[in-house]
Amino acid sequence: MGGTGQVRRYRAAVGSASSMSGAARQGSGVCRYHMRTGATSLSSSSMAEKKPAAKKRGRPAVHRTPRKEEILETAARLFADEGYNSVSLQDIADAVGLSKTALYHYFDRKETILGTIVVTTVKELSEFVERAVAAHQSPQDRLAAFLEAQAEFFEQHQASFQVLLTRFANLREPKMRDIAVEWRVNYENTIRNIVHEGVTAGVFNAGSPNAVVRMVISSVYWLARWYRPSGKQTSREIAREYAEIILHGIVK
Amino acid sequence: MGGTGQVRRYRAAVGSASSMSGAARQGSGVCRYHMRTGATSLSSSSMAEKKPAAKKRGRPAVHRTPRKEEILETAARLFADEGYNSVSLQDIADAVGLSKTALYHYFDRKETILGTIVVTTVKELSEFVERAVAAHQSPQDRLAAFLEAQAEFFEQHQASFQVLLTRFANLREPKMRDIAVEWRVNYENTIRNIVHEGVTAGVFNAGSPNAVVRMVISSVYWLARWYRPSGKQTSREIAREYAEIILHGIVK
Repeated sequence: MGGTGQVRRYRAAVGSASSMSGAARQGSGVCRYHMRTGATSLSSSSMAEKKPAAKKRGRPAVHRTPRKEEILETAARLFADEGYNSVSLQDIADAVGLSKTALYHYFDRKETILGTIVVTTVKELSEFVERAVAAHQSPQDRLAAFLEAQAEFFEQHQASFQVLLTRFANLREPKMRDIAVEWRVNYENTIRNIVHEGVTAGVFNAGSPNAVVRMVISSVYWLARWYRPSGKQTSREIAREYAEIILHGIVK
Repeated sequence: MGGTGQVRRYRAAVGSASSMSGAARQGSGVCRYHMRTGATSLSSSSMAEKKPAAKKRGRPAVHRTPRKEEILETAARLFADEGYNSVSLQDIADAVGLSKTALYHYFDRKETILGTIVVTTVKELSEFVERAVAAHQSPQDRLAAFLEAQAEFFEQHQASFQVLLTRFANLREPKMRDIAVEWRVNYENTIRNIVHEGVTAGVFNAGSPNAVVRMVISSVYWLARWYRPSGKQTSREIAREYAEIILHGIVK
């Protein structure tokens, strides 16, 4: 992903003052996009529209296109393993067991597959951490919940997370890029608001809120670079250690 | 750069028990390499051999090959800006103002240029942080000095640091890769030892030393992804805030 400077500029441009107003607009933006391209979820979590509420729960059976999901999951794995530039549409077609012509029925360009992976992943990440922090009250618990949730999300979506991390800045298609940036702003605002709430409540030091936000976000992105599932700790356990350090420091 | 898991495996393989013994062997390894390929510094800091001491200080005038340095600096900037795969030897020759034939006189392959940039950068980074922490006594001050030094180094070598960050794992030439990994181990051992000393001295909590090491290292690598020189803070100022958070936490 690009950088907070870029996000800050973007936020100024779109006038996204609060996380909630941003979320509302982003939600509709993604839904518009969803309908136009038929972008689907990379995981079992729902890419269905936020409203009406009845549709939000349960499996979005009507809109599911398993073959499209399979293409996106396979492409994410290939991009993560081989590097985006080394993978051709033919490689993706071969890996899914489709002819290239049949693949064209779903996606006509590699860039569209990449964009769909990035948009879907950053949207799901943002929604996932937002749900996780909503279950907690104190700024300390909410900060720890954010860290653990982003680690958990990474663990469940390693290939698409790698693609998000390495290719976000290269997203060329303007509409997809705009939607992805909006979801990233929403995600970053979630932790930004937690830190702000903690400072306002007199629980956190007011020293350097931006540094806290960056440390929290960078910890999971960096995790994505070195974490191996075969290690002794789960991502969530590592995130819990990070939260402890950020909250209480290491000096006795 | 790859990951601590990989480094741990590597450390086991080479039996690098302490930072110092590692440094001694790595030093000679890099010097051997230096003599064979004529690898030179990417910056004004010295790539001259560590011994004799008289050579270590001052400008290494005898061994300087300005044209080669210029090629490496230009290539690092091109790799960082355009992406390694998008840059050809012809592009590098054009940017330096050499014919491709003249460039071949210095480097016959793009891979060798990349390897030289990576080896030189990780070696200089390791030496730079080692010198910085040596000036301090307490584990708290040494940890802060490490964080600030790596940020300072990044600020001074942004292009080659980006190349190090994004291409370390892709280094194919085995000897260059081995030397680069040894320097990375040396670099990581410096902060690992600081944390260990702090725990032994009863100054730091013994909870999760590996998490501390990872947070310290990840903070600068992530900095390299979002930092813009035009921002309000220098890298060193940001690193000082990180050190404060890691040492003392944010909860009042």
